[in-house]
Amino acid sequence: MTDAVVVGAGLSGLVCARRLAGAGVDVEVLEARDRVGGRTLNQAIGPGQVTELGGQWAGPQHTAVRRLAAEVGVETFPTHIAGRHLYHHAGRATRYRGDVPARMPLGLGDFRLAQARLERLARRIDLDDPAGAPWARRYDEMTVETWMRRHMRTRSGRSLMRLTIKAVLAVEPREISLLGWLFYIASGGGLDSLIRTDGGYQQDRFVGGSQEIALRMAADLGQRLRLATPVRRIEHGRDGVRVHADGAVVDARSVVVAIPPHLHPTIEFAPGLPAVRNQLATAMSAGMVTKFVAVYPEPFWREAGLSGHATSTEGPISMTFDNSPPDGSPGALVAFALADGARALEAMSPADRRGVVLDALVALYGDRASTPQQLHEQCWAREQWTRGCYVGYFGPGGWTSFGSALRRPVGRIVWAGAETATHGHGSMDGAVTAGERAAEEALAALRLEAGVRA
Amino acid sequence: MTDAVVVGAGLSGLVCARRLAGAGVDVEVLEARDRVGGRTLNQAIGPGQVTELGGQWAGPQHTAVRRLAAEVGVETFPTHIAGRHLYHHAGRATRYRGDVPARMPLGLGDFRLAQARLERLARRIDLDDPAGAPWARRYDEMTVETWMRRHMRTRSGRSLMRLTIKAVLAVEPREISLLGWLFYIASGGGLDSLIRTDGGYQQDRFVGGSQEIALRMAADLGQRLRLATPVRRIEHGRDGVRVHADGAVVDARSVVVAIPPHLHPTIEFAPGLPAVRNQLATAMSAGMVTKFVAVYPEPFWREAGLSGHATSTEGPISMTFDNSPPDGSPGALVAFALADGARALEAMSPADRRGVVLDALVALYGDRASTPQQLHEQCWAREQWTRGCYVGYFGPGGWTSFGSALRRPVGRIVWAGAETATHGHGSMDGAVTAGERAAEEALAALRLEAGVRA
Repeated sequence: MTDAVVVGAGLSGLVCARRLAGAGVDVEVLEARDRVGGRTLNQAIGPGQVTELGGQWAGPQHTAVRRLAAEVGVETFPTHIAGRHLYHHAGRATRYRGDVPARMPLGLGDFRLAQARLERLARRIDLDDPAGAPWARRYDEMTVETWMRRHMRTRSGRSLMRLTIKAVLAVEPREISLLGWLFYIASGGGLDSLIRTDGGYQQDRFVGGSQEIALRMAADLGQRLRLATPVRRIEHGRDGVRVHADGAVVDARSVVVAIPPHLHPTIEFAPGLPAVRNQLATAMSAGMVTKFVAVYPEPFWREAGLSGHATSTEGPISMTFDNSPPDGSPGALVAFALADGARALEAMSPADRRGVVLDALVALYGDRASTPQQLHEQCWAREQWTRGCYVGYFGPGGWTSFGSALRRPVGRIVWAGAETATHGHGSMDGAVTAGERAAEEALAALRLEAGVRA
Repeated sequence: MTDAVVVGAGLSGLVCARRLAGAGVDVEVLEARDRVGGRTLNQAIGPGQVTELGGQWAGPQHTAVRRLAAEVGVETFPTHIAGRHLYHHAGRATRYRGDVPARMPLGLGDFRLAQARLERLARRIDLDDPAGAPWARRYDEMTVETWMRRHMRTRSGRSLMRLTIKAVLAVEPREISLLGWLFYIASGGGLDSLIRTDGGYQQDRFVGGSQEIALRMAADLGQRLRLATPVRRIEHGRDGVRVHADGAVVDARSVVVAIPPHLHPTIEFAPGLPAVRNQLATAMSAGMVTKFVAVYPEPFWREAGLSGHATSTEGPISMTFDNSPPDGSPGALVAFALADGARALEAMSPADRRGVVLDALVALYGDRASTPQQLHEQCWAREQWTRGCYVGYFGPGGWTSFGSALRRPVGRIVWAGAETATHGHGSMDGAVTAGERAAEEALAALRLEAGVRA
């Protein structure tokens, strides 16, 4: 009999287990995959050099993941962003500086006005219960697409907003409610914070790759972590829980489920969970993103005065960043296919997909982009134990119907994962704070129980 | 090595297995529950007398389930609908005849105009691929709530439309796209067909209860069906499939998955499914319905000239029907709590819930309704192996992103279930036609393979 079982060795589960272990609690972590890190994943691109195929950035506001990284000895370095950015729209690529391309005054004005409106609404959102207020529920009844058509006047402004939503949530504006978008904006501290590099979500990277944080926590946990052990069934009752996984049965006082809600149906609960939890799990979906990392002998775009950051409304690649290691050697460009763009690429053969991605890079960075030494690809929707990135989201009406149940424990079952975060929802920082909150909940319950027994 | 494994012994899976067995194919059926019938479920209410807690009606257009019932010796009888119906709105119950209450000329005109608009649009929908046409995709970008606010002018008309959507899909208008609603209307042959008793979906019932159809098919399958055998993992490849369930491993040439898409994550696939299938499963949710059946010594409402059919915008009970056995003894009223109404009831204690339901019946049928001999309750969202009824549905954007993959086989894996039906989508008839289609697909593949081997 152990004190607590944590299901899932992503960032959130590992943080939770680490905190529980630090408080002197016996904990075991069960992970379905044969690796840790969940939606963070390093990719070797040379001797001692890595890039990332999953979550990778942290902003100055992401104090929890920064503190954790420092604890485990992982340093940060600034994302390379010096130079001009590219905006590919209506068939041509233009250079710009700053957050958003200024070369389309009407569209940009339209976008900025919409941004101001969204942020004004977002400031009223209660992050603990976005649909708690009746006025907020009205915003859960319409899609962002509907809102855009009603409130934005220019095609180019709408294109820019569509691109922004895809970039930060990997969904199309038809797939989420206005309330869902407002919550995400509020959770991120405003739209600028979400899309910016300097001062925003993309400001810094982790030396050795973001997955290194999870790998070091896993090393600390040692034998308390079991890989390739998918949990199939959780029995729970007054006296404790019994967790059945492939090749393991663990009895405990408490269980923390640290996987995205849309993966909860992978586990049978006995007795079954309340109706609202059964439906919450099916009401969440995850975004669709494929990351490509092209590796070159050097970051040749820098010589041309380009930052390596580009945004495009032309599809299938919506966004690129310079993703080279700290010393810029080798050079690496990360390219994102998002939502419909990523789905279109999935319908192609691997060779065709590679060709389309390289064509997109050439259109932005010229012929030298056509012959990378390596081209890595990671489609998170192909991963059975993820089924989509960056994060799970509710469709219209979901926050209204299920939001208040998102973090509420069910008996001895506590919920972690980036989807349960309030601030930094869906980011690595949100995964960390959610894991810490879940650990506190489990600890409080364990202490209460110990007190009752004593 | 068997020819085919069917996962799920709901109506669709059983029909599929029956047809495969009939064609001389070796088939095994694996069912997670300790019973068959899926979303059909009989409830004994007296010696030899039953009522239903799940799907129960068939219209004249539902020829497939009628033919099947006749084959297994289950007869139909007309739903009791003689008398006046009740409409409970704005605090009072009024009597009416016909499909919809006529006592509110403005609201009814508004509703009828909206109905005509919806049906005109629905006639253009391709049931095989609702989002196939670019013009149709525009309708997938907005919720039905948005459409109602834009196109319906009266509060009472919108109330009636909201009630209609809840009655036929068990969702709120904020939860589905206009395209989803148009598809469902088209699939049902028009809104009148969906809501009518005489000539519509609710016209007839099955003697002995609708689950009897599944029970008889199961009896015919005998040892080829295993209950309480949840499938956990399906390995699939060029040479066949291996299906791992609790206490059983079955090798086969082909597997038919006959459970709702939102339950597909309960099964691990090796290798993993294509990204579009991984996301399709998480993109579907199911409606929320709790059925209550109150049993009385006799159907006392009939004496008062009432049909037992009522509709209410007052919540939490949105709809009732006379659900007595063919001879009217005992009397039974079935009451539906739908979507937000059902969720509100789930937040209550069982005693409070019972009180609220009886109060609602008293408000409609008077004091005699307050003391049923029995009160049965079935919340389908509480059921882990269902997670909601009547049927799985896509949120806004879902048909656009995933519709074309809904029925497409993946190697040796074929998809059945009411969610894959074109006509009668989500009805028992749809479950039957989907099971038949899946059987044909599996048969064609088996024959092709046998031909190649020969």
